[in-house]
Amino acid sequence: MASPDPQRLSLNTATVRERWNLAQTIEGCARHGIRGISPWRDKLDELGAAQAARRIRAAGLTVTGLCRGGMFPARTAAGRRAAIADNRKAIEDAATIGAKCLVLVVGGLPQGSRDLAGAREQVKEGIAAILPHARQCGVPLAIEPLHPMYAADRACVNTLSQALDLCDALDPGKTGALGVAVDVYHVWWDPQLQAQIRRAGRKRILAYHICDWLVPTTDLLLDRGMMGDGVIDLKRIRGWVEGAGYRGFHEVEIFSARNWWRRDPDEVLATLKARHRRRS
Amino acid sequence: MASPDPQRLSLNTATVRERWNLAQTIEGCARHGIRGISPWRDKLDELGAAQAARRIRAAGLTVTGLCRGGMFPARTAAGRRAAIADNRKAIEDAATIGAKCLVLVVGGLPQGSRDLAGAREQVKEGIAAILPHARQCGVPLAIEPLHPMYAADRACVNTLSQALDLCDALDPGKTGALGVAVDVYHVWWDPQLQAQIRRAGRKRILAYHICDWLVPTTDLLLDRGMMGDGVIDLKRIRGWVEGAGYRGFHEVEIFSARNWWRRDPDEVLATLKARHRRRS
Repeated sequence: MASPDPQRLSLNTATVRERWNLAQTIEGCARHGIRGISPWRDKLDELGAAQAARRIRAAGLTVTGLCRGGMFPARTAAGRRAAIADNRKAIEDAATIGAKCLVLVVGGLPQGSRDLAGAREQVKEGIAAILPHARQCGVPLAIEPLHPMYAADRACVNTLSQALDLCDALDPGKTGALGVAVDVYHVWWDPQLQAQIRRAGRKRILAYHICDWLVPTTDLLLDRGMMGDGVIDLKRIRGWVEGAGYRGFHEVEIFSARNWWRRDPDEVLATLKARHRRRS
Repeated sequence: MASPDPQRLSLNTATVRERWNLAQTIEGCARHGIRGISPWRDKLDELGAAQAARRIRAAGLTVTGLCRGGMFPARTAAGRRAAIADNRKAIEDAATIGAKCLVLVVGGLPQGSRDLAGAREQVKEGIAAILPHARQCGVPLAIEPLHPMYAADRACVNTLSQALDLCDALDPGKTGALGVAVDVYHVWWDPQLQAQIRRAGRKRILAYHICDWLVPTTDLLLDRGMMGDGVIDLKRIRGWVEGAGYRGFHEVEIFSARNWWRRDPDEVLATLKARHRRRS
């Protein structure tokens, strides 16, 4: 399979978050010829959305997403309203920086709850509540199914199938306002992956995130691998995503407390550029 | 929902494996009035299957399963043949101890492989290869879907749907020779769980394993919780399993390096009896 276009590489700020602030990350992308960036909101808050937007634009970068909205379920109605308000703010910030989408990590079980079906219903209601504002602001919402090991505490949407069911229910016309973020780390294991990527199609794949699954994985959250260091067949999955019509960026998001977060970010960027070319 | 029948409680030897050998575990079950036991093969090897069978019978215990067969995928044909031979031995041991089923943890990716679809095909071929011997020995094979976080290194069958597809392909007549082990730890997150339990039905649910999912979970393998200490809605899932017609045992299998394995096994057994009654 042909190597991917290096122009499609994007850096998620989480990959270098321990060493670089947003300004440094923007400069680093420019220095390494990486054309896309996807900030987390804590990084955006360092500069404020308006100034961040100016700097990103000045560096000529495409904002492939803003991480993240979501976290809808809550024990109380007030908690759920607060989540909606926070998501509206995230949508506005995403618009300010010209993000291709707002990534939604939808949230898990409310504190003390075991009602997974109920949490999933709250997620549906939450997305429905913010979708009109997202449309007005011109910010597509990308539901990111998270690996089932995060079902309790981060996201109770755990398969692409489930995310696409939400899209079908809330945006039956496929207007482009609602879609999915396909992160290989979360979905690589899914026996339905190929079929669901095809189902998603060009209109609903709003983002494509890459990294790798290490064997062994020593931490549920902070032990993701660099492309090529694990067991995910990245070329095969990219083939499926491109086969579905996706022509967007390949965003590298690596949480790695024991390895990549400890290294010089310039080394990390050089490595991920090479691995994107050869191993993705 | 009514409390479960305490007569249906079974102890998987993994729950006390660090402190008790098989003889002690058999005595412990008898002492605490636990009517079922499910040994792992390393424990069975301590006594040999024949002597273990005699002691278990003398204690009046039902053997709810033997853990475990499976581990089919391998890099070489010789490796796959060795796995088949080992599974045949496991089937014979399961017959000797009168186990209700042999639990199959099917195996993950062969060393160095990223071909998940290929591994899944090897699993299918492996089960097909041992099924005739299992029939001859009168030992039902229970495919246990493992949580997706084990897809690479332990089991590439990760949902009940996938396990039931294998059952449909290899035992279309639903003869009872092939079915599934439903372990809540592995499947609790699955949006299709209720539907797939119904699909499995009485004929294909060969075992039901319980424990709990802790928040946070600090280790991918050895941090399972006691029933009631986590977020799994055990009563609801038991309702689905019983609704499908299952009338077998509830087997407690807790891998817990930081907590339950460190405690006095008599305390562990007293606790799990109480939790089975009140929280399962």
